[in-house]
Amino acid sequence: MSDQTWHQSQGMLNWLKNYQRAFLIGDVSAGVIVALLLIPQGVAYAIVAGLPPVTGLYASILPPLAYALFGSSMVQSVGAQAITALMIGTTLSTMAPPGSPLNLVLAAQMALIAGVTLLVCGALRLGFLASFLSRPVMSGFTSGSALVIAGEQLRPLLGGALTSVRPYSACIGLGSLLLMWLAKKYLARLLEQIGIRKKWADTLSRLAPVAVLLTAMLLVSAFGLNQLGVAVVGKVPSGLPDIGFSVSNDHWRALLGPSMLMAFVIFLFSQSAAQSLAQKRNERIKVDHELFGLGAANLLSAVSGGFPVTGSISRSAVNYEAGANTPLASVISAAILALVLVAPTGWLSWLPMPVLAATIIIAVVGMIDFATLKESWNYDRSDAAAMLGAAGGVILLGIEAGVILGVALSLASIIWRASHPHIAVLGRIAGSEHFRNIHRHEAETLADVLMLRIDSDLFFGNADIVVGHVENLLNERTSQGLHTHHVLLVMSAVNVIDTTALHALIELNKNLRDRDITLHFSEIKGPVMDRLQRSHFMNALPDVQLFLSTAQAYHYFEMHPPLSR
Amino acid sequence: MSDQTWHQSQGMLNWLKNYQRAFLIGDVSAGVIVALLLIPQGVAYAIVAGLPPVTGLYASILPPLAYALFGSSMVQSVGAQAITALMIGTTLSTMAPPGSPLNLVLAAQMALIAGVTLLVCGALRLGFLASFLSRPVMSGFTSGSALVIAGEQLRPLLGGALTSVRPYSACIGLGSLLLMWLAKKYLARLLEQIGIRKKWADTLSRLAPVAVLLTAMLLVSAFGLNQLGVAVVGKVPSGLPDIGFSVSNDHWRALLGPSMLMAFVIFLFSQSAAQSLAQKRNERIKVDHELFGLGAANLLSAVSGGFPVTGSISRSAVNYEAGANTPLASVISAAILALVLVAPTGWLSWLPMPVLAATIIIAVVGMIDFATLKESWNYDRSDAAAMLGAAGGVILLGIEAGVILGVALSLASIIWRASHPHIAVLGRIAGSEHFRNIHRHEAETLADVLMLRIDSDLFFGNADIVVGHVENLLNERTSQGLHTHHVLLVMSAVNVIDTTALHALIELNKNLRDRDITLHFSEIKGPVMDRLQRSHFMNALPDVQLFLSTAQAYHYFEMHPPLSR
Repeated sequence: MSDQTWHQSQGMLNWLKNYQRAFLIGDVSAGVIVALLLIPQGVAYAIVAGLPPVTGLYASILPPLAYALFGSSMVQSVGAQAITALMIGTTLSTMAPPGSPLNLVLAAQMALIAGVTLLVCGALRLGFLASFLSRPVMSGFTSGSALVIAGEQLRPLLGGALTSVRPYSACIGLGSLLLMWLAKKYLARLLEQIGIRKKWADTLSRLAPVAVLLTAMLLVSAFGLNQLGVAVVGKVPSGLPDIGFSVSNDHWRALLGPSMLMAFVIFLFSQSAAQSLAQKRNERIKVDHELFGLGAANLLSAVSGGFPVTGSISRSAVNYEAGANTPLASVISAAILALVLVAPTGWLSWLPMPVLAATIIIAVVGMIDFATLKESWNYDRSDAAAMLGAAGGVILLGIEAGVILGVALSLASIIWRASHPHIAVLGRIAGSEHFRNIHRHEAETLADVLMLRIDSDLFFGNADIVVGHVENLLNERTSQGLHTHHVLLVMSAVNVIDTTALHALIELNKNLRDRDITLHFSEIKGPVMDRLQRSHFMNALPDVQLFLSTAQAYHYFEMHPPLSR
Repeated sequence: MSDQTWHQSQGMLNWLKNYQRAFLIGDVSAGVIVALLLIPQGVAYAIVAGLPPVTGLYASILPPLAYALFGSSMVQSVGAQAITALMIGTTLSTMAPPGSPLNLVLAAQMALIAGVTLLVCGALRLGFLASFLSRPVMSGFTSGSALVIAGEQLRPLLGGALTSVRPYSACIGLGSLLLMWLAKKYLARLLEQIGIRKKWADTLSRLAPVAVLLTAMLLVSAFGLNQLGVAVVGKVPSGLPDIGFSVSNDHWRALLGPSMLMAFVIFLFSQSAAQSLAQKRNERIKVDHELFGLGAANLLSAVSGGFPVTGSISRSAVNYEAGANTPLASVISAAILALVLVAPTGWLSWLPMPVLAATIIIAVVGMIDFATLKESWNYDRSDAAAMLGAAGGVILLGIEAGVILGVALSLASIIWRASHPHIAVLGRIAGSEHFRNIHRHEAETLADVLMLRIDSDLFFGNADIVVGHVENLLNERTSQGLHTHHVLLVMSAVNVIDTTALHALIELNKNLRDRDITLHFSEIKGPVMDRLQRSHFMNALPDVQLFLSTAQAYHYFEMHPPLSR
C-alpha cells in the first residue's frame, strides 16, 4: 500500500529532534557541494549588487542557519541570489558609488528592513498575498531580469566595452563561457555514459563552472595574467566584518520602499523554490513559517555584514539532487564557508572577473523561460501578454518598475475576474428537474420568466455589474417583444453576499417592482440564508419568494401564468 | 403595460438632439436652485481647500459645461465638493501658505493632472477599477473625512480657538448652525403642512442654509459686525481669472501622486452620485463616459482658475429633486454663476465666515453614516471592521493615507476571497442522480473515492490553494484509515483554467499517481474543454478520465471497486 500522506513541513528544529542517522551521508555531501557553489556565487552576486566580494560570503553563513531554525523547507538553500542582487545594485547605485563602504552599510540596512517586513507579514499571516503574482508574470519578471543581468556582465566578461575589449580577458572569459555551456549541455550525459549514476552525473555537471573557475584562477596566478589586463577580485579580508547602520534619516526613508518591495521579491523566489522541491519530496510548505525563516535570515544577514538573501531555485535544486534530507546540509555549508573566511583568504583574490562574469551569465541564461512563453501563447494569450509585459517592464523601465508592473497586471487581472462573474440563463431540460444554461443545452423556458444562475459570490467587486447584467438581459427581452413577470436568481453557487451586494439586491428589487416584475430566489445556501435572516433583507424584500429548489420555482411559475397569456 | 426598459445613458450631446420642450421648466428651476447653492458652497469649499474664495466660483462655471458635453449622467452637478476640497487643502498645505498665489497655481495643476489621469483611464477603459472599493469602505472614508472637515470648521465657526472665542462670531456662527439644523430637521414637514407639495418642500428646505447665509450677510453689513470681530470673506475680484502653471519640476513631481489619488477619489464620488440617481431615473451610467466627462471637467477647471472638481452627491440630489431632466440645468447654473462674476461682486465680500463654517458643518455632518456602520455590524463584522478601518485611517493618518488604506483593505479582501474558493465534498443523494455537499445533505459516498466540486474558476490566485486543499482532504482520509483510489474533480462551476492552474493540475496528477490515486474530471464546460485540448494538458494527463456527468463517473467507480474491497 502506498503512503498517501503529504508530510506537513516541520520547521522550528523538529527536523533535528527526528534526525535519523541514514540522513547524514546525503546531508554531508549536499553540504559540501553547495558550499563549493556558494563561494563563487556569493562573490559574483556581491559584485552584481555593487558590494565588496567578501559580503557575498558573509551573506552565506548566518542566514542559512537562521532559515534552518525557522524555515519550513527541508532543502532550501538561502543566500545570495541573482535577481535580488540586481535589485540591491539598482537601488544603491543612486545613493553611493559601487564598492564603497557606505554601500555596504546601506545593503545591510536593506536586509534589516526586508527582514522586519517579512517577520511582520508572517505575524499578520499575509502569506496568501504571494498567490497574487501569476506564473507567467513571475516567469516574465525572472526572464527580463536575467536578460538585464546577462547584459550587464558582457563588459566584465570581455574586460571592457565592446569597443575596447581586452584580448586576454575576452579569451579567458569567452573560453570559460564556452566550456561552461558545453558542460551544461553534454557533461551529465557524458558522465552517465562512463558509468556514473544519473543523480551524481547531474550533480557533478552542476559543479563544472566551479571547476572552470578554479582552473582559470590557477592559470591567472601561474602566468600573472592579471598583469596583462585580466581583472581579478583583489584583496578579500579574512575574519568577521565590521557592522554598522547609517544614522541618516534620508537613507532610511530612501531605502524603505525598495526594501519592502525587496521583501516581496525575496518571498516570491523563495516560495517558488521551496514549493517546486516540496512537491518532489511530498512535503507541504507552511507559508507563514517561510516568512519567519526568511525574515530571520535577513535580520542575521543585516547584522553580519551581508545583504538581502533569499532561497535560490537553482542552488536549492542542487542541494536536493546532491542528497540533502534536512537543513543540516545548509548548516554544513555554512560551517565550511565560515572556515574559508577564518583561513587565509589570499587565494580568493585571484578569482578572475571575466570567469565570474561567465558563471553569472551561464546561471541567469538558464532562467530565461521561452517554454512558458510559448505554452501560454498557445493556451491563453492574456497570460502570454502579461508575461511579455512583465519582462518588457524590467528591461525597459528597470527592475523595481518591473515588479510593480507585474503586480499591477496580476491585480488588474484578479479584479477584472472578480468583477465579471459568469451568469447563466437557465432553462429546464425537457422531462427532467435539471436546469441548464440555455446557450449550451436544449432547454425549455417560460415566456414571461427569466431564470439566472449566478456562478460566483456576490460582493462589492461585482454587485453593480451583476445588477447591470440583469437589467441588460431584461432590456434585450423587451426589445425582442418579451414581457417579463418573474426574475428568478438561482443562488446555488453563491456562498457569500456582503453588505454592498445586499444593497444592490434591495435596489434591484425596487427597480423591478417599478416595472411589475417580481424577484425570486432559489437554492439559497444555508449559511447565506442564516445571515440574510439576521439582516433587514427580508423586511426590505417583503414580496420576494424564496424557493428551496429551482424545480419548485419553475412549477410555481407554470401554475401562475400572467393574465395576458 | 409598464415600461421594462432601462435607458442607456446618452452623453455626447444626445440629450440636446432629443430635447423636449416639456423638460424646460424642470431644467430651469433646477438650474436656478443649484446656482443658489453653488455660490456659498463654491466659496466655502475654496476656503476648505486653502484657496481664494473666488476660485470656488471659477470651478463652478466651465467644469459643469464640460461634463454636460461628455458625461453620462443627466442630473449630475459637477463642481466643488467637500472631500476633494479637504484633499486639495491637505496636499497644498505642505507646499505653500493658504490663500497664496502659488497655491492657486498648484491647485490648477492638480486639476490638470487629475483630468489627464481620468481621460487616460477612460481611454484604457479602466472604469471597472471603481468596483474595488466596497460600500462600507467608501462610507467609512466619507464619514472620517466629514468628521475631519467639521472639526476644522470649529475655529472659523467660533471666530477663534476654543480658548479664544470671539463672542459676536460665536453667536452668529452657533445661531446659524442651530437654525440650519432646525430647518434640515423640520422645515420640509412644516412646508408640507402649510400645503406645499412634498417635492418642492424638500427642495426649498435644502435652500434654508442659503437663506440663513443671506440674512446673516445683511445683518453683518447693516450693523458693521465685521468691525466687531466677525470675519468676512473680503474682496472677491470680478471678471475672469489669471491663468498659469508652475514651471518647477519639483512642484509637478510633488503633485503627481496626490493628484492621481485625487482622480481616483473624484471618480468614486462622482460615480456614487451618478449611480444612486440613475437608479431613481431608470438610467444606466456608462462608466467610461463618466471618466471622459470628469476628465474634461477637470481640464477646463485647470485652465479657468479652478481646482479639482467632482460630482457632489448632495447637490446632484437637489438638482434631481428640483426637477432637472437634462444637463441643461447645469448649463443654466453655470450661466448664472458667470453673470454673478461679471456683475459687481462687492456684495460677496460680506459673506460672514462663521456662517460659511456652519454651512459646511451642516453639509458634512449629513455624510456621517452611522446607519451603514450599524447595519454592517449586524450583518457582516468584517465589513464593519473595514468601515471603521477606513474612517480611523482618515482621522488618524490623514485623508490620503485613509484612501490608500481603504483601497488596501478592499484589495486584500478581494485577493483573500479569490484565493479561498469554496470546495464541496460531494455524495450522491440516494436513489437519484443528484450530487450534493455531504456536509449539508444526506448523501452516499464510495469508500475509496473522493469527489470534489470546485465552486470557482481555477487561476493563479487559487491554484496552489486548491491543490493544497485536495491534499489536506486526502491526508484526513488517510488518518481516518480510508484508502483512496480515485479523486474526481467536478468542474461544473469552473469557467476558466489559466496557465498557472493548468500546471498545478498536472503537478497534482503526478503526485496522486505516485500514491496510486487516479485523478478524474467530470462536467468540464465546453469552452474550457476546447482550450484544454489545444494545450499539452491531455498529453500530460494520459491516464486521466473525463466524464460528461458526475453520475457517469459514479457509475464507473461503482463498477471498478478496488481489489482490496
